[in-house]
Amino acid sequence: MLTLFHHPMSSASRFTRLVLHEYGIATNLIEEFEWARRREFLVLNPAGSLPVLLAESETPLCGAYVIYEYLDETRGSLKRDLKLFPENSLERAEVRRLTDWFLGKFESEVTRHIVRERIYKREMPLAMGGGAPDSQTLRNARANIRPHMQYLEWLSASRDWLAGTRISYADLAAAASLSVLDFMGEIDWTQTPASRDWYMRVKSRPAFRPLLNDRIRGLAPSAHYADLDF
Amino acid sequence: MLTLFHHPMSSASRFTRLVLHEYGIATNLIEEFEWARRREFLVLNPAGSLPVLLAESETPLCGAYVIYEYLDETRGSLKRDLKLFPENSLERAEVRRLTDWFLGKFESEVTRHIVRERIYKREMPLAMGGGAPDSQTLRNARANIRPHMQYLEWLSASRDWLAGTRISYADLAAAASLSVLDFMGEIDWTQTPASRDWYMRVKSRPAFRPLLNDRIRGLAPSAHYADLDF
Repeated sequence: MLTLFHHPMSSASRFTRLVLHEYGIATNLIEEFEWARRREFLVLNPAGSLPVLLAESETPLCGAYVIYEYLDETRGSLKRDLKLFPENSLERAEVRRLTDWFLGKFESEVTRHIVRERIYKREMPLAMGGGAPDSQTLRNARANIRPHMQYLEWLSASRDWLAGTRISYADLAAAASLSVLDFMGEIDWTQTPASRDWYMRVKSRPAFRPLLNDRIRGLAPSAHYADLDF
Repeated sequence: MLTLFHHPMSSASRFTRLVLHEYGIATNLIEEFEWARRREFLVLNPAGSLPVLLAESETPLCGAYVIYEYLDETRGSLKRDLKLFPENSLERAEVRRLTDWFLGKFESEVTRHIVRERIYKREMPLAMGGGAPDSQTLRNARANIRPHMQYLEWLSASRDWLAGTRISYADLAAAASLSVLDFMGEIDWTQTPASRDWYMRVKSRPAFRPLLNDRIRGLAPSAHYADLDF
């Protein structure tokens, strides 16, 4: 069985779990705190970031981008009924652009900051920066949510799935990121009806179920978090 | 002919120019200032970031990651004598990890900040944040150079090329990033002899020549910048 080092509130980890589940790859999950910079973990990934997948012969694959391209090459290309990449290179480019948008741009402008302030700071010892969230950082990150939701709304309203006519890695990346924020009640879905419909469709997939059962000590998920018809 | 929107001191743009040259793809270069957030440019790439390649039928390809995977699929796979990706999926994963290390991690910890402070702030009007560099930001970014150079030194000393036995996208990404810092005289090569040898090998490739001729108004390159035997 493959092993995935992950954190339940890391968007890139959630995205990777979704891909693994879609492909029906049973995985042993190990929870890791990036901020702890554990020695044995840094040996696997000198970048110190999540996720890390121990692939065939225990080779560590570091980061969502490396992992999903690898899984697509080694597993995805064998699937006939579930192609998370389109055949056409220009369409693949669009899938990559949006996957990177959510796991890169959205992550660095919004998700990373809110997760750090609201989740990681609870887990960290005081000496490592733990404690109460910084309200200015939270305010800045929350202000950045709106333009991203507007863009998501435009994509959801004008296409069947975010990158085109079929579900792709881009949908899984976006839904993984949004699910982290949704867990914390940071998304107001009433403003973006097309995005809400799109999110409900992704959330209803069997691969999503384990994510909806994730819990964080001392922080209850938002009321509608696990609700498939929210 | 393809068109590339770039900036001479953007690592991701330089990396893309190197890939295009290695593949012998003639490209029309248009210099773009990310900080200006030009309306027509945002239509091409809503993320507002460089580089953007106008590919077949003028479709914009946004960001180095999207572009190099596209070029590899459409051009690289046809080249017999120059394979910038190895055949094996685990080895490709290592190339992707290191390419992302330099264009992602190194960029966000070091290069982006130094380029902004020393280059972009000269080009920007005062009202948009132009002016003198912030010395604290520069100090922080410069302090981050050392651990990255140590890692590069370990890679250069233990492998023929950064990701293995043959030149790959990882070498072009690392050399593109370092060349930006080297232009500004930010790299002390005397501390890392194996990296210096590796950089000289990449720098000697014909694809590198146009980069060595780049000039920035009002900022002379370091004395050894264009020197192939520095």
